[in-house]
Parts: sequence; C-alpha cells; structure tokens
Amino acid sequence: MKLWQKKAVLDRDVEAFTVGDDYLLDYELLPFDCQASKAHVRMLTKIGILSDQEGDRLLKGLDDILSLHQKGVFEIKAEDEDCHTAIENYLVRETGTIGEKVHTGRSRNDQVLTAIRLYSKSKLTECEADVFAAIKALDSFIAKYGHTVMPGYSHMRKAMPMTVAMWGGAFRDAFSDDQLLLYTAMKLIDQNPLGTGAGFGISLPLDRQMTTRELGFSKILHNPVYAQNSRGKFEGFVLTVLSNIMGDLNRLAADLLFFTLPELGYFSLPDEFHTGSSIMPHKKNPDVLEILRGKYHEMLSLENRVRTTTINLISGYQRDLQLTKAALVRGFTVTLQSLRMTIHIINHLHVNAVNCKKALTKELFSTDKVHRLVQQGTPFRQAYRKIGDEYEQDG
Amino acid sequence: MKLWQKKAVLDRDVEAFTVGDDYLLDYELLPFDCQASKAHVRMLTKIGILSDQEGDRLLKGLDDILSLHQKGVFEIKAEDEDCHTAIENYLVRETGTIGEKVHTGRSRNDQVLTAIRLYSKSKLTECEADVFAAIKALDSFIAKYGHTVMPGYSHMRKAMPMTVAMWGGAFRDAFSDDQLLLYTAMKLIDQNPLGTGAGFGISLPLDRQMTTRELGFSKILHNPVYAQNSRGKFEGFVLTVLSNIMGDLNRLAADLLFFTLPELGYFSLPDEFHTGSSIMPHKKNPDVLEILRGKYHEMLSLENRVRTTTINLISGYQRDLQLTKAALVRGFTVTLQSLRMTIHIINHLHVNAVNCKKALTKELFSTDKVHRLVQQGTPFRQAYRKIGDEYEQDG
Amino acid sequence: MKLWQKKAVLDRDVEAFTVGDDYLLDYELLPFDCQASKAHVRMLTKIGILSDQEGDRLLKGLDDILSLHQKGVFEIKAEDEDCHTAIENYLVRETGTIGEKVHTGRSRNDQVLTAIRLYSKSKLTECEADVFAAIKALDSFIAKYGHTVMPGYSHMRKAMPMTVAMWGGAFRDAFSDDQLLLYTAMKLIDQNPLGTGAGFGISLPLDRQMTTRELGFSKILHNPVYAQNSRGKFEGFVLTVLSNIMGDLNRLAADLLFFTLPELGYFSLPDEFHTGSSIMPHKKNPDVLEILRGKYHEMLSLENRVRTTTINLISGYQRDLQLTKAALVRGFTVTLQSLRMTIHIINHLHVNAVNCKKALTKELFSTDKVHRLVQQGTPFRQAYRKIGDEYEQDG
Amino acid sequence: MKLWQKKAVLDRDVEAFTVGDDYLLDYELLPFDCQASKAHVRMLTKIGILSDQEGDRLLKGLDDILSLHQKGVFEIKAEDEDCHTAIENYLVRETGTIGEKVHTGRSRNDQVLTAIRLYSKSKLTECEADVFAAIKALDSFIAKYGHTVMPGYSHMRKAMPMTVAMWGGAFRDAFSDDQLLLYTAMKLIDQNPLGTGAGFGISLPLDRQMTTRELGFSKILHNPVYAQNSRGKFEGFVLTVLSNIMGDLNRLAADLLFFTLPELGYFSLPDEFHTGSSIMPHKKNPDVLEILRGKYHEMLSLENRVRTTTINLISGYQRDLQLTKAALVRGFTVTLQSLRMTIHIINHLHVNAVNCKKALTKELFSTDKVHRLVQQGTPFRQAYRKIGDEYEQDG
Repeated sequence: MKLWQKKAVLDRDVEAFTVGDDYLLDYELLPFDCQASKAHVRMLTKIGILSDQEGDRLLKGLDDILSLHQKGVFEIKAEDEDCHTAIENYLVRETGTIGEKVHTGRSRNDQVLTAIRLYSKSKLTECEADVFAAIKALDSFIAKYGHTVMPGYSHMRKAMPMTVAMWGGAFRDAFSDDQLLLYTAMKLIDQNPLGTGAGFGISLPLDRQMTTRELGFSKILHNPVYAQNSRGKFEGFVLTVLSNIMGDLNRLAADLLFFTLPELGYFSLPDEFHTGSSIMPHKKNPDVLEILRGKYHEMLSLENRVRTTTINLISGYQRDLQLTKAALVRGFTVTLQSLRMTIHIINHLHVNAVNCKKALTKELFSTDKVHRLVQQGTPFRQAYRKIGDEYEQDG
Repeated sequence: MKLWQKKAVLDRDVEAFTVGDDYLLDYELLPFDCQASKAHVRMLTKIGILSDQEGDRLLKGLDDILSLHQKGVFEIKAEDEDCHTAIENYLVRETGTIGEKVHTGRSRNDQVLTAIRLYSKSKLTECEADVFAAIKALDSFIAKYGHTVMPGYSHMRKAMPMTVAMWGGAFRDAFSDDQLLLYTAMKLIDQNPLGTGAGFGISLPLDRQMTTRELGFSKILHNPVYAQNSRGKFEGFVLTVLSNIMGDLNRLAADLLFFTLPELGYFSLPDEFHTGSSIMPHKKNPDVLEILRGKYHEMLSLENRVRTTTINLISGYQRDLQLTKAALVRGFTVTLQSLRMTIHIINHLHVNAVNCKKALTKELFSTDKVHRLVQQGTPFRQAYRKIGDEYEQDG
Repeated sequence: MKLWQKKAVLDRDVEAFTVGDDYLLDYELLPFDCQASKAHVRMLTKIGILSDQEGDRLLKGLDDILSLHQKGVFEIKAEDEDCHTAIENYLVRETGTIGEKVHTGRSRNDQVLTAIRLYSKSKLTECEADVFAAIKALDSFIAKYGHTVMPGYSHMRKAMPMTVAMWGGAFRDAFSDDQLLLYTAMKLIDQNPLGTGAGFGISLPLDRQMTTRELGFSKILHNPVYAQNSRGKFEGFVLTVLSNIMGDLNRLAADLLFFTLPELGYFSLPDEFHTGSSIMPHKKNPDVLEILRGKYHEMLSLENRVRTTTINLISGYQRDLQLTKAALVRGFTVTLQSLRMTIHIINHLHVNAVNCKKALTKELFSTDKVHRLVQQGTPFRQAYRKIGDEYEQDG
Repeated sequence: MKLWQKKAVLDRDVEAFTVGDDYLLDYELLPFDCQASKAHVRMLTKIGILSDQEGDRLLKGLDDILSLHQKGVFEIKAEDEDCHTAIENYLVRETGTIGEKVHTGRSRNDQVLTAIRLYSKSKLTECEADVFAAIKALDSFIAKYGHTVMPGYSHMRKAMPMTVAMWGGAFRDAFSDDQLLLYTAMKLIDQNPLGTGAGFGISLPLDRQMTTRELGFSKILHNPVYAQNSRGKFEGFVLTVLSNIMGDLNRLAADLLFFTLPELGYFSLPDEFHTGSSIMPHKKNPDVLEILRGKYHEMLSLENRVRTTTINLISGYQRDLQLTKAALVRGFTVTLQSLRMTIHIINHLHVNAVNCKKALTKELFSTDKVHRLVQQGTPFRQAYRKIGDEYEQDG
C-alpha cells in the first residue's frame, strides 16, 4: 500500500515506469533510513508527540527491520515504491496505530534526503580511507623503486630523465589534492535536512537541533526550499569529486599501459594480472589497466546525468530528481572498486631497472648541457641554440 | 575455464574487476551469439573444416543452448567471462573434440561484434515499431481533439492561437524524422563483421558471403581493422538516435507538465496516472511525466559514455570498448520503456475544451489584426506599430 | 532600432547580455538571409502583397546589401541585435515605406531558421567535399605504401601482422560511413521553414511551394510548431555528424602519435610538421597531431551544448535556442579546419619500411601457426593450446 | 621568431592550425605572465644568474610591456605563437643578450602554468565578490518583499504556502555553499608551479620559496610531473565550481520564468527588461531570463571539454592541454557576466502581493489541517486519510 493511497488505484504500467528500480536500490539506503527514523522517533518522543511507550515500540520495530535486513530477509516490494514506504508499512503491520504516527512531522521528501546524506557520508568516508591507502601503496612503491632513473616524456616523446619517485609522487600529490576535494564534498553535504518536510517546513514544534546531534550532522539545513534544491546539486558535487579521483586513476592506467609496452618495458605486472586472446596464443593482455582507464567514462557520464537532470527545472521537488539516486549509488560503487584495484595494481607493479637505464639516451640530457653552458656564462638562448645545432648535425 | 587459459591463473580480484557485470549482460546477447555461431558452423561445414556430422552435432548443441536459455536454465558464470566462453565450454563438455573446433576461423572479437550487431538490429526493429505506434496514437488523439483551438506559447508567454492538431502534429513530424534516423542507424550497422577475426583477418578460406547471407546482413564489413574501430562508433550512433527519440519525449513531457498545470488546465490525465504525497493529502502529482522528462538525461549520459570511452585511443581492440555494451543494452531498455509509456499517456490524454477556449484572450489575435491591416494596404511595419500602440494603451 | 521597438527602451545591460555576440556571428548568416529574403520578396510579389515595382526595389536593396557585405562594409551593430534587423533597417532607410513591407508574412523566427538551414546546407556540402578529398588522400597513401607489412596491435600489444593498406583502409571505410551520416544530416534539415512564422503559421495566402523551389529545399516543413521544435534537434544532429567525423580524426591522430613514436618508428612526418621546446633543444614535437586529437573534445562539447540547451523546455521558441547558433558555426569551423589539416598530414605521411619489417617479430605469427595445424587436422582449441605452450616455454 | 626555431621552417598550415586563437587569448594572460616573469627575474638576480644591472634592465622591459599592453598597443602575432614568446622576443629586441637570459631556469611549460594560475586566482576573486554581491542583493529583496506569502510548488503543482523570504533564502543559501566551492577551488590551485620546468625539474639552484612568496602563492607545487598533470585537473575543477554557480542561476531563471507567467503573475520585471516580437505587437518577452537559463549549458560544455580533453592521455605535457585555455577564459567570462546580470535582475524584481494572496487556495493548507488533527491526538496517517477524503469529496 502506498502512503498516499487514494480511491483511484495507480495504473499498473505507470507504477512500473515511475518506480523503476528504485525499490531495489533502496536496499542500500534502508539502514540509513532506519537510523534517521530512530532519531526522528526519539525527537517526537521528546517533544511529546509520541509517548515513551510508543517511542520504544517504534524503536524496537526499526531495530527489527535492521536485523531482518542484515539477515537479507527484509523485502521491499515494487508496490511499496521505496524503502520509506516499506518501513512505515512494516511498522503499521506490527504496531497498528503506533506505526501510523511515525510519519508525523516529516515528509518522504526530507526523509529520503536524510537517508541519502547519511549514506553519502558513509561512502565518502570509505573513499577517504581508500585514497589514503592508495597514497600508502605509492609510498611503498616509491620506497622500493623510487631511485630508478627512467625517461620522462612530453608530447609522447622522450624529454628529460625523471626518477620513478618523481613519477609515483605525481600521483601521490594528485591523491593528496583529492583529499581536499573529498573533504569539501563531506563538508558541503553535512547539513541535516530532516525537518524541512516537503520543502516548505513543518507546522509542528520539531526539535531539529536534537536530530542533527543524534545523526552526527555538523549543522542544520534550515531553508526548506533549499533542502529540496540541494538535491542534485549535492549529489552532483559528490560525483564530481569521485570523477576527479577516477580521472587520476585514468591517467595512472594510461601511464602504465604505456610504460609496460613491450617495446619500452620500463614497468611490468605479473602474469596473473593478464588475460589472453581466444585466438592468438601468445597474447598477454593488460585488460585490468584498460578497464581501469575506461571506467572514468562511466563515472563522468553518471556525474553528467545528475548535473543535467535538475537543469531548466523550477524549485521544489520534482520526480526527475529521484533519478539521481541510481547514479549516485553506482558512482560510489565504481569509484571504490577502482580505487581498490588501483592499490592492488600498485602493490604488484614491478620496475625493470635494466630497461629504464638502457632507455636513457643522450638527447634526454640536452637541457642539462644547456644549463651547464649557462652556468659557465653563456646566455640561455644562445646556449640553447648551440646545443640545438649539435643535435641537428647529429640527427 | 577461459578460452585462453594459461599456466598462470588469473588473479581473483583482477578477474572480478575486469569481468564486471558482463556475464550477466550477456544473457541478452546469448541468443544472437547462438544464431551467429550456427551460421559460422554451417559455413565451416561448407568449406570443409567441419565434416557434415560434426557440423550437425554442433548445430544440435547450439539449439540445445538456445532451448536451455529459453527455459531460463542456461548459466553464464563469472569465471566464464562472457556468453561466448560459456557457449564454447558447453559444446566442448557435450561434444568433446568437436566442440574444440567451433572457434576455428573466428576470434571472440568478431564473435562479440556480430552478436551485438544482430542484437542491435533486433532492438532497432522494436524501436521502429514503437515509434510507428506512437505516430498512430497521435493520429487518434488528433482525430479526437485536433480541432480544439488553444493558446500557443513562445518565450513561455501567450503568442498566437494554435489547434491541438498543430501541437500534436509537431510530435508526429518529430517522430517521422526519427524514423529517418532509425533507418540510418540500421543501415550503418548492417555490415557483417564475422570473419574479421581479432581485427587483422583470418588466414583460412572463409566464405564470408555465406555467413552474411545466412545472418541477413546487407553487406560484408571487409576491413578487419575497421571492424574493430567501428565498435563504439556504431554503438555511439545507435545511442545518438535513441537520444533523439528521447529528446522528443522529453519535450512532449515538458509540454504536458505545462498544459496540465491546474492554473491553465488545457489538458489532463486520469487520476490513475497520478501519485500522491506522503504528507499533503490533496496532492495529485504527475510523476509519470516527470520521470519521462527525466529519462532523457540517463539516455544522453549513456550515449556520451560510449562516445568518450573510445576517444584518444589507438586502433585495434582495447578492453575499454567492452564497457560500451552495458550502455547500449540499457539505452535500448530506457527507450523502449519510455516509448511505450508515451503511447499509454497519449491514449489517455484529455483535452479540456472549455479551458482552452476561455484562455483565448484577445492579445493572441494581435498578429491577425496586423495582417488584416496589411491586406487593406497598410505596410506591415506600420500596421505592426499601430496595433502595438493599441496594446500599450490598453495594457 | 529594434523591429519590435516599444516605448520602454530596453535596459542597456539587458541588451548587452541578451544579444551577446550574436550580431557578430550573423556576418556568417547574412548572405543566406539575403538569399531567403529575395525568395520571400519574389513570392510576396507573386501573391500580390508587393507590386512588381516594390518587389524590384527590395530585390535591388538586398543585392546592395550582399555586395556591401562582400566588400566587408555592411555593418551589423549590437543595437540591431542581429542580421535580420540590420537588413530590414537598411531597406527601410533606403526605400522607406517599401522596406516596411518586407517582413510581411514572416517572423524573425522562421527567417532565422531559414537562414541557418541554408547556411548549414552550404557547410555540409563543404564537409562532404572534404571527406571525399580525405578518402582520395588515403587512396594515394595506400597506393604508395599499402603493400608494406607492419605489426597490428590490440590491447596496445603486438597482435598479428597487418598491411599499411589495411590500416589506411580502415579510415577510408570510416569516412565512407561518415558520408552516409552527412547525407542523413542533409536530408533531415532539407525542409523549408519559411512561412511558418513565429511557430503558429501566418494568416496570409503565402505560396510556400514557390519559396521552397526558389531556395532549393527538397520539401516544405509544414507544421509551424515543429518548425520551432526542430531548432536544436536539427542543429544537434548536424553537430553529431560532425563529431562522428572528428572522432575518426581523433583516432587517426592517436594512431599516428603511436606509430611515429621514435621507439617504434613505423611512420614519420617531415620536420616542417614539428615544433620544438623552449628549453629542450633536441625536441621535435608532433603538436599538429595532438591538436587534431584534442579538437574532438571541443566538437563533442559544442554538440552537447546544443543537445542539452533545448532540454526540459516546452514547445515554441524560447530565447535559449538562440545560443545554439554559436555552437553550430564553431562546429563547422572546427570540422572543416581539422579535415583539411588531416588531408595535409596524410599527404606528407611517410612509412618507414625498414622499421616496419624489423618489428615483425615471431609472436605476431602465432595465429597463423594455429591455423596451419588446423588445416592439417588438429582441432582448433588443441592447436591453440599446443602453440600457446611453445610460447610459454620460450617466453 | 619561435623560441625553438630550427632550420626546418614550420609549415604555414600546421602553424595556423596548432596556434589557433591562442595568440589572441593570450592578451588576457599577458599581465600575469609579466608579473611572473618579474618575480622570476628577481629570483635569477638573487641567485646570481643575472647581475643586478641585467635584472633591472629586464624588469624595466617587462614594465614597458605592461604599459604598452595597458595602452592596447603591445602586439602578439600569430608567428609568436603566444604571449610568452612575444615577451621574450620583445626583451631580446630591446636588450639584446640580456633578453636571451630571461628564460634561464624555466620552460614555457611552467611559465604558462604560472600565468594561468595567477589569472585564475584573480578571476576567482572577482567571482567571490560577485557571489557576495548577489547574496547582498537577495538580502535587500527579502527585506523588501520577504514577508509576502505565496504558493510553494512541488511537481509543478501547488503544495504548501511559502514566504518570499523562504524562496529567496534558498538562493542565498545556495550562493553560500558556492562560496565554499570557490574557496576550495582557490585553495586547490594556489600552488606555485614556477620552477618545475618542462615537467621534470630544472638542474639549476632556483629559489622557489622566493618566487612563491613574491607571487603570493600559498605553497610550492613541488613535483614537476604533477605540475604538468595538474593542468586540466585544476582548470576542470575551477570550471566545475563555476558550473555550480551557473546551475543556481539556471534554477533562479527557471523560477522567475515560472513565477512571472502572466497566468500566475506572482513576480514581475520592468518593461525595460523585456524584448518584443518582430511580428506579434503585443509580446513582452523575458529573453533576459531565458538567456540566463540557457547559459548554463555553455558553461557545462566548457567544463566537460576540459574534463575529457585530458583523459586517456599519459603523464607529461601534451599539446592537447593547451586547448583547455580557451574554455577556462570563456568560462570566467560567462560566469561573471551572468552573475552581474542576476544581481541586476534581483534589484529590479517586483513581487505582486495581490496575485500571491489570491493564489493561496485552500488545498495549500491541507497539511496544516492534518497537523492540527495530530496535535489533537489523531495518529498522523489517520489524520492524513481523513483530510484526504474531504478533498476527494470536494474534488
């Protein structure tokens, strides 16, 4: 049964089309909704809308749902539309009239916002841990191979020598900057929307400070219209940050695909990281790097999906916004999987010192020669031309 | 077991990461791979690589797979990587040495290309049928309501009167143009890649004309390098066409959301097409139109995912390309669901003649007044200014 | 003076913001508007709205504008908003009351649509010529170097031998498919919108067949609402086709950047095609290939700009649509410049036969060995494993 | 003359294609390059590469360039490629051998990075000021009209009453969050790349602390490879933040287009903010709001252009990266123009209290009725159903 059930029964095809996969996605959100519902119930009890007994009964019901969910047996049906309805329906089924009070002082609008924010905070924390782990993996890699000198490339052509530490450090610093972005995403979304109702506030004396404290939000999102308008904006920014991380992994993958070219052979991965061909028996293919590279594009498309869905629309909730949920959940999945695979790759990456050394051909040192002349007093541009002429005569 | 199984066993995490959901998606492709495999087996029999008996045994095996699949019991496991491997493994299990011959003269590369092209042709045909059905639905709608005159808007402001037929006809014509685009997509991809191997041809005397004929392709895709390079390009174009259709549905939804504004009330949908609010008992929400509008953004993002995944890459198969498969399959699903819902909506759309008539306020006829003056001999711009002055004095 | 000038004078900042660079872009459109205006005037004369004398005077005025434009002295001012206003203002200035009749039976809405369609048709024809020229350039390249055998790559790893002809032919075939797309874009937009007015038709007995014939359109775009809705849709599709072409150039550039890697040295470009470094005197950088590769992204972004601008909007002209004009014009510029540079590059591309031959290492022939065993009777998968084992022992 | 001039003269067409409009864009960057060059010269003097006299001569030359630029007479020619070359060429022309020393210890790579970072910091500061001004404008608007009650909408249908203050406050809070994003962008890019050379460091004892201090950067960007890899990443993030601002303006524009619908008439803008139609004399069109809405799409496309250009590429400078410059400059222009127009609009926005009041129909109060029953003891869901039934009977 819908929360809003009216006499006219919703057309079956319309129901299937509008609900989509939402009810399945909501298995991810359910624990966070229970957490928020518990805080809401405690607050309703405190302000006297629920008696202590009613409050306890509902808290128990919510704990039961959580425990059923952990066992994998709490079901969200398509007819339920979403986890929020499934939860209220369960409580009414189990507690009767008491359950009919749980929705007092909230709307599904602020309820879903709250669950998504809690979910996102939890997933951002996972991302932070994985980015930190990636930095640690790079540190170990650099400790092991960092001193090796290899050719640095610009325009895909040999430029100047660089150390493996310099190369690895570039990704270390990129991840470091990603930490700033993750921190900002966390700070942006860390605003409690519970209590803003359907986007226009609630005419009951709610204690928003209390739920904010209980749920661990840093501050209250006060403006109910902005609570709704923040949907899409916040998810979009979270996905932007994930895309930035994925962009760094994309470049890492591109570098590894290049540095492991058999014709260069600077780096290598173990055989266990390679797949083969169905027809060419000699092939050892770096699919894992190609998938890592390719995943960026799924990520960017998820981000853009969210960032255009909400555009050209007026303020206030529109059902289009719900379509951002799938993209958000998928975005976290893609990023976390990719980060973990990256760490796995870095941990198994091997630098072939012999090949690196062999590749340090003399043109890589042309700028050093220029600088030596400069230190002996030749103006830079003249030194540049002099060394350049030598290479032209050689070449 | 992998087709390419080597001594080094693929790392478990690498396997999970690279295979992703591919093995699940492949339930969609499996019937088309069986169809292509049967054509391939018949061709191998004809050119003498397989004996008649071997050919018959493999054909029977492929039919068995098809029939298991229809019963929902043919399993593609993650270790299989994909349907192509699952099929060869099944045939080897059932027929021994004969099964070990089925991959002669092909690579997984042309095999997957062929299955995807056959799948896409089948789905494009469904899209064509649904676009045609949408045109028919509009025809019925116009037959019923077309004569009603209502305000036409530009800049979201009343402009000139239009008939409902003119409004509906605009979408009819858009769908008509979409038919040209669908036809082009079909024509573009209707090229048989089977026989191009891993992108560099096959050194066996294959009869590519025969498989082309058997599989109903219009022509042979001759160049093996282009066969690989066409992956992504072709999928991208198919998705572009689907996005164009979805763009028309997006505008239709936007119009209906506007014309059904209670403040205007030109159009309406039955109560059964509306959902309610969890907190506002009076609400009747047009979620179905909002989801229809919002789905465009998922579609465009799927298209863009494909169209950037293949970019900045060199020729020849790269595993990144495989990531286009999920987007293609999802794109067809989204489009077909949306088209069917659109037809359902048009069939239930009601025009409120009274509201339309009431809204035909006098300013809508200002241009007609100008034209009347023009026909009486006033130069256009003078007539325009004269009528304009009347409105300014009024206004 | 604006065509719609009212008592309230448009706020200066609002004027600057809304007009933007439109008045500058319109130098591109002006000749096509003159062409359309002339057809319109002839039609108005035929249906008796203009006398023969008036018609002749306006035609002369329009020819004067064209000739001033060719001399580079016809000015479109920001206050004019666009070329359409500049044209009417000129005619009124030169011919008085007669000029005030030129706008009879049309709106700026269908006027701009018509000019853009004529402009696009002309530019598409240029694209067709350049794609054809690129095919011819590839033919010459193949005639010269096609027989050379070089390594083919998949997963960025050596796969099987290919001829240079096979590689070049892949782009030839891609361009061939682009010709189908260009043809479709041309066919889609080849519909005359002149006479649809502001999107709701014109209450005067216009002869639309006549203007359609005069302007060389294949058919009339009948539905006035669709005329407006086609804006964005048509431009978007044209840009999609240009992006498809640019996608092929992107891959060509990526291949050339790879095949000209000094470590591989399969291909090379003359010194005159290389730039240098401000600090590394030895550097020869293939900037031209990098810019060619990078231009795809500008193109795709122009396309997406158009394709999202019109989304979530209701039917009928909205000023947002005007923002598609700059993207369209820029898209043609980018594509035509890139196509011409591609031809220039192909004409100067050199294949280094010695390096190609040297790179034909034995693993490239593993599949041929398998096929030889197959032809001697070994089942394919057994032959594959046998040859595979040989490589593993070697490797 | 190029900095890297070799014997082979760059092909004319290749030059035109690779340089593009860069030399024009660089008029924006030139003052920032001069600023950076001056800091560089002072540092070279300090470490003894330049004598005090040489340093002074170069500083004077750089000041001369700045002053010529302010007068609009410093020319950057296409042959110069960019402002960096134009500056060195000028200095060599004016000071001979001394000028040939200015490039000591830097590459164009870190030079352009530095100029772009300084330029971006300056523009971000302008954005911060404008966002602050927009907040102030909203404050004044709210002070004037905030108390007015009007209908709040969800699903584009009347939902609950809201005050104008609540509506305006939503944008105030959005801008407030944008301040966090601007701050993050500033913090991210506030890293001095000068001294990282071509991406692999400089073998001279540069004093990077000194230039960092002189240029007002918060910290040194130490890793030379990351200096290059940050190009694109940093620009992309800056553009993301601008897009977030533009997204808020997009929603504001969409709201205003809706609330100024004559059929609703809640808000209005003065006549001076409206344009007219070329054919419909009664029209008053809100083009300024439509352009404001539409500009988001240009912004998002600029952002995406940058964010895909750098993808699938290996580390180290690639010429593709240069294509991000035009998008960055344009992005700042679009955002600053749009912010200023938004402030202008808010300052002239009028709330029509009479229309707002008239629109407060009774269904808007349905939730309040539910809450009243709840406060009298009815369980929420029962109260909801009771009030819902009343509306259905009314209906």
